[in-house]
Amino acid sequence: MDHPKAVLFDAYGTLFDVYSVGLLAEQLFPGQGQALSVLWRDKQIEYTRLVTTSNDGAHYQPFWDLTRAGLRYACKRLGLELTDERELRLMNQYRHLSAFPENREVLQVLRTRGITTGILSNGDPQMLGIAVRSAELDGLLDHVISVDSVRKYKTHPDAYRLGVQAVKKPAAQILFVSCNAWDALAATWFGYRTLWVNRYGVPFEELGTQPTRIGTSLDDVLAFFD
Amino acid sequence: MDHPKAVLFDAYGTLFDVYSVGLLAEQLFPGQGQALSVLWRDKQIEYTRLVTTSNDGAHYQPFWDLTRAGLRYACKRLGLELTDERELRLMNQYRHLSAFPENREVLQVLRTRGITTGILSNGDPQMLGIAVRSAELDGLLDHVISVDSVRKYKTHPDAYRLGVQAVKKPAAQILFVSCNAWDALAATWFGYRTLWVNRYGVPFEELGTQPTRIGTSLDDVLAFFD
Repeated sequence: MDHPKAVLFDAYGTLFDVYSVGLLAEQLFPGQGQALSVLWRDKQIEYTRLVTTSNDGAHYQPFWDLTRAGLRYACKRLGLELTDERELRLMNQYRHLSAFPENREVLQVLRTRGITTGILSNGDPQMLGIAVRSAELDGLLDHVISVDSVRKYKTHPDAYRLGVQAVKKPAAQILFVSCNAWDALAATWFGYRTLWVNRYGVPFEELGTQPTRIGTSLDDVLAFFD
Repeated sequence: MDHPKAVLFDAYGTLFDVYSVGLLAEQLFPGQGQALSVLWRDKQIEYTRLVTTSNDGAHYQPFWDLTRAGLRYACKRLGLELTDERELRLMNQYRHLSAFPENREVLQVLRTRGITTGILSNGDPQMLGIAVRSAELDGLLDHVISVDSVRKYKTHPDAYRLGVQAVKKPAAQILFVSCNAWDALAATWFGYRTLWVNRYGVPFEELGTQPTRIGTSLDDVLAFFD
């Protein structure tokens, strides 16, 4: 099979470590940092699905707003007092998530080989812009694509289609990379070649479809070009 | 405001206790029964969303199959060995979930007042048929509606619309009752009058919409008819 012509990366969880907020969460709520960061993330994703599935996107809210809603829910659920100041600090931390360490080098190698690179993310444009600049990835990406323009989140096909439209190649010639199993699954359904980066050693989804390949870090992207 | 002309109930989690599988799960996997029943349920619901949102329902699988997929995922994730025999026993238990104790009486009162009653559920017709008969609710329901006919799960509007079509009244004249916050939320978005039965004392979703009313058991349905 030909090498992919382009590589699109999921952002949150894939290039940026969504659990890196856990340290601040632990500082603000001792003993509850991990529980808060996990529930916050779960709820954020759940909310993207609820607003996308219901009423054909009529209840869309930008990812930033859903992220804050997820934080508020998670704190209430865990019985943690989220003052305005704590919310501001946690949300600000979310704006500047740590990037996984291997990212830059992988993107650099792709660029030197002339492969088109990009992000295809649920994040809204402003969040993505700040995250990309914070992680100093801005010179390494041809496309930074937000689902915000279609007001539907992944795993809606309108969201995945944005990648095809930006790259101007068929999905089968594009490698889509995600650490989120649901994202790798749905991108496979959409028609992308896919790499699921299983950072945390968890099972893949049990829905009868497998990603093209499974790896353990973003370095495994490069094996598609051997 | 006029009394509702009909009451539609969610089934799983509302009329039937999805966590009642926890006892058998605990017997099969000591110390892990609760974790398994919670993760199983979460994954089952997540799968309904993934197959509904992705590719306009092209990856639809019946609720029974998604329930089994969720069980398999949850066991792998928790490192529990799901033999064929254990899977069979747990799935069989799921077929015969306990009904919450107040259900029959509430349905009986509604019937004596001439209110149309029904179920509007993600469950497939066979599962619903068995569950309703097991709980001896079959004489008390005018409609048992499965989303299976539209091959999309709640919270998709096509799924909620089935209730309006069956009852032949506008959504605003129908009370939709669910113990699942996301279900009560999306039914409110759809246009139903809603009662969220908060059995477990958890927060409502933080997406800016409230259900018409919040209660603590199905008995609170009757207050809509005072």
